[in-house]
Amino acid sequence: MDSKFIVIEGLEGAGKTNAHNVVVATLKELGISDLTFTREPGGTPLAERLRELTLNNAGIGDEKVTDKAEVLMFYAARIQLVETVIKPALAQGSWVIGDRHDLSTQAYQGGGRQIDKSLLMALRNTVLGDFYPDLTIYLDVTPEVGLARARARGELDRIEQESVDFFNRTRARYLELASSDSRIKTIDATRPLDEVSRAVREAVLSWFREQK
Amino acid sequence: MDSKFIVIEGLEGAGKTNAHNVVVATLKELGISDLTFTREPGGTPLAERLRELTLNNAGIGDEKVTDKAEVLMFYAARIQLVETVIKPALAQGSWVIGDRHDLSTQAYQGGGRQIDKSLLMALRNTVLGDFYPDLTIYLDVTPEVGLARARARGELDRIEQESVDFFNRTRARYLELASSDSRIKTIDATRPLDEVSRAVREAVLSWFREQK
Repeated sequence: MDSKFIVIEGLEGAGKTNAHNVVVATLKELGISDLTFTREPGGTPLAERLRELTLNNAGIGDEKVTDKAEVLMFYAARIQLVETVIKPALAQGSWVIGDRHDLSTQAYQGGGRQIDKSLLMALRNTVLGDFYPDLTIYLDVTPEVGLARARARGELDRIEQESVDFFNRTRARYLELASSDSRIKTIDATRPLDEVSRAVREAVLSWFREQK
Repeated sequence: MDSKFIVIEGLEGAGKTNAHNVVVATLKELGISDLTFTREPGGTPLAERLRELTLNNAGIGDEKVTDKAEVLMFYAARIQLVETVIKPALAQGSWVIGDRHDLSTQAYQGGGRQIDKSLLMALRNTVLGDFYPDLTIYLDVTPEVGLARARARGELDRIEQESVDFFNRTRARYLELASSDSRIKTIDATRPLDEVSRAVREAVLSWFREQK
């Protein structure tokens, strides 16, 4: 089997770290141990600089970054990561496990921030073409559950201070896109951790059996 | 008449500064003196930071910026300039005179650098939509003439050290795009300065008479 790109997606507090560990353990069961890990936005020096510019307005004073400029910078960072890290790793036979990828942009910017969804999709298609994750594990939680977990961990950054409405819109866009793409597996992540872990493992195993 | 966006384009050494002065003087003759000046790439703090990242690899060590990432950063800088400087100036009744704009990307990246022309055009359309300069003065010179002038001024930056082939391809793309867009006026800029100045003045005047 060719090596694959697996992405874990979901709102803050959805349990991405746990799911990541389950995916890694399940792949090991299957005899796959050459793994490369990515995290978006970021992941190369250029991508990290762009992340600083968009998240912290680093070095640009109080200039407001426009929605379109921010989205273009996200895509610059993403294609840099895809072309210099993800595709070379896959070509060398390593599997790649991504903490977030393009679906986050579609959900957070298109849903939460309400940036024009067709613009985001057009940009995705222009920049990434036919490059998609082979499998995306989308951990579905309500904002209430996710934010309560994130707060319990003391993790509240800029994004997490947004309103519950923002996260409801983000979740709705995640669900909408997941429902129309068979490569995205939706896991009910409001359940207890051991049930979620079992569901993630089963999703990976059943996906794996379908692969050539 | 609504205020307009006029752009001056051409290879290094084509005489953009002289043409800029002629355009400004001609607009003054026509009673237009509320002018805003832009220069691309750059023009806002964010756009200047992106320019540093693409031109000088500022702060990213020896990481090679991929073609697509570079182009996306150019477009991030451009839309930031368009939305925060150019459109607001036009809306307030100021005319805007641009030293380079999107045509430079199409010509230098698409022609010179041979980045996929349809990708560049798709990005332009996705990001800028129906926003175009009202008038573009394209100063056409052969690379030999332009580079000889630029050298005489001691101006040889990274771009100017590229090969003559690069500039021939850039010029060919400029000419191709100018031939299919009536808003772009091509001026033979290999002639003596006073003839070029006269031609630029006449191009502005005849364009102005056609405006509503």
